[in-house]
Amino acid sequence: MNPELQELINSITPADPGVIKRANIRQARLTKPPGSLGRLEEISVRLAGIFGNTRPVVNGRSLVIAAGDHGVVAQGVTAYPQEMTGQMVLNFLAGGAAVTAMARTLSVDVTVVDAGVIAELPEHADLVSLRIGPGTEDIFERPAMTRDQAERCLLEGARIGAKVAGDGSRLVATGDMGIGNTTPSSAITAAITGMPPEVTTGRGAGLNAAELRHKTEVVSRALEANQPDNDDAIDVLAKVGGFEIGVLAGVMLGAASRGGAIVIDGFISGAAALIANGLSPALGDHLFAGHRSAEAGHSIVLDHLGLEPILDLDMRLGEGTGAVLAMTIIETAAACLAEMSTFDEAGVSDAETEKSSTK
Amino acid sequence: MNPELQELINSITPADPGVIKRANIRQARLTKPPGSLGRLEEISVRLAGIFGNTRPVVNGRSLVIAAGDHGVVAQGVTAYPQEMTGQMVLNFLAGGAAVTAMARTLSVDVTVVDAGVIAELPEHADLVSLRIGPGTEDIFERPAMTRDQAERCLLEGARIGAKVAGDGSRLVATGDMGIGNTTPSSAITAAITGMPPEVTTGRGAGLNAAELRHKTEVVSRALEANQPDNDDAIDVLAKVGGFEIGVLAGVMLGAASRGGAIVIDGFISGAAALIANGLSPALGDHLFAGHRSAEAGHSIVLDHLGLEPILDLDMRLGEGTGAVLAMTIIETAAACLAEMSTFDEAGVSDAETEKSSTK
Repeated sequence: MNPELQELINSITPADPGVIKRANIRQARLTKPPGSLGRLEEISVRLAGIFGNTRPVVNGRSLVIAAGDHGVVAQGVTAYPQEMTGQMVLNFLAGGAAVTAMARTLSVDVTVVDAGVIAELPEHADLVSLRIGPGTEDIFERPAMTRDQAERCLLEGARIGAKVAGDGSRLVATGDMGIGNTTPSSAITAAITGMPPEVTTGRGAGLNAAELRHKTEVVSRALEANQPDNDDAIDVLAKVGGFEIGVLAGVMLGAASRGGAIVIDGFISGAAALIANGLSPALGDHLFAGHRSAEAGHSIVLDHLGLEPILDLDMRLGEGTGAVLAMTIIETAAACLAEMSTFDEAGVSDAETEKSSTK
Repeated sequence: MNPELQELINSITPADPGVIKRANIRQARLTKPPGSLGRLEEISVRLAGIFGNTRPVVNGRSLVIAAGDHGVVAQGVTAYPQEMTGQMVLNFLAGGAAVTAMARTLSVDVTVVDAGVIAELPEHADLVSLRIGPGTEDIFERPAMTRDQAERCLLEGARIGAKVAGDGSRLVATGDMGIGNTTPSSAITAAITGMPPEVTTGRGAGLNAAELRHKTEVVSRALEANQPDNDDAIDVLAKVGGFEIGVLAGVMLGAASRGGAIVIDGFISGAAALIANGLSPALGDHLFAGHRSAEAGHSIVLDHLGLEPILDLDMRLGEGTGAVLAMTIIETAAACLAEMSTFDEAGVSDAETEKSSTK
């Protein structure tokens, strides 16, 4: 493996169990009935462990959207034309897409990455042009990319992830754009989790039942043709992945190497997380699942990673939309842990105090 | 009924069906697969109908937290001491509570209302002192308040709601504080929905099974003793309600009278919404349910109002915490509808265009 990539992966550490313990003690003393903030409590405590601070403070929000094209669209796995990938990148840069409207509203910095879009894209201050290749090969017949390309995706993504994570106290969200990219994501999910393509493959942007059956056959054939090694995440990425998926896996590794927290979006980000998690067992501690996508295979990814999604709004757009929305919830959960008064500080009687004083 | 209150109720209009129709057309032309923003689409379109604008813009966020005490705590329905109500009001004013930490993070203006707390509270710029009474009477034995007091809660609340709604383009969230207030909320829910106290009564801030049985008996007895008229929401409020519940119902009516949108919190705000909805059939169009509370009766309230909660994070704190969190989701949904490009504007090919051009 590329030595810079190897070093970066080795530098990722789990969340700090001592900080988690102390954060749980603090959480229990805050002015509210224990447990009454529900999942916000667990979210805040985990963020404390990631940031190494019992009073975690989020110092900013970054989104990385990686875009790439997929040779497998030649197999008719999507209703949308391939040129839409490049058109949507321009739409991101112009601020007209869903995720860019959200990012403006929620003050999230956006970095758009051309991981490997077929269309030639103009230079733009907010666009990082990696162009690992002009779209992947058709995984129905051959590997998506070379192993060298897969490592380049990861390394370049990691550099971006480390940069946008800053000193590690920013939240980093991942988003994707790539017509046809639910197909490689289904293949990755099947390869890594061992679940059959019939359950890892879904309707994507809107297939009917017959189209879904065809797409499932394409995923099955891609796995048979390429025989990805599920013990080797780079092999899985190279054989049945995508450039934007590899870059997003790299972004996760890079942000985690800075001690950062990553909010993953839906199914494509989830497939990228399976790759990244396969390379670093400590990565999972740094991940939050922004939402439960309506795409079928997403729940399998979340189960494999042991993640409970924060939002469940029937979204299935990608782009990072679910991750960006969830960042606010995570930041607010952290603010409660960091800023609320304890019963002692506020001079508020709690239930236990009362029970002992009246006995 | 008080003529000012009657006039205000009469001025509430439903969401505009013409705007909703046009907003749905616009929503379908935005650069994303139809339906892929899930529930955000329906939320944005309803907000368009409330604001009377196919491109709805949220111009600010206000939270009203009403606090009150409850005579029924004499029946041992809660593990927490009554003085905590006043202490928590001071905690809100000092910014040390969960909801005030959230409001700072999310830029939400907070108004705290003393609707009827037993403790004498100091004057404070952010505190509106209504003090309809020094806590309610014990509903186990007699009506919580007089009909005149109930109307005063509604009218004063409506004045506050109208004020914080501004020109109607702000989101208004409702929150509560009142030790023991799940008990009157369970009684209101049973009275208005017709469901038995056994299903409208829950564990509140943390009762065990025996304590829950006792609380359920108290709710049953309160309904038997007072015989609230379920066709007369003011009677229900007076017989088995609470001062903060009446004020919150008023806030909803006042904000809706300005054409505003209201985000209700959990069970207590839900009980207030049942009262407000009983007074104005058009009110429901203006309501969003911020979250599904873990408190048992909340789902019954939401079903009765026909509302689907936005968040489901196992929260059960009140104070407006679930409503404040959900405001960001609503505002972001609106930004997508208002700011995204259509396929035509962005020069992006959509699936339908492609299908017809290749046929």
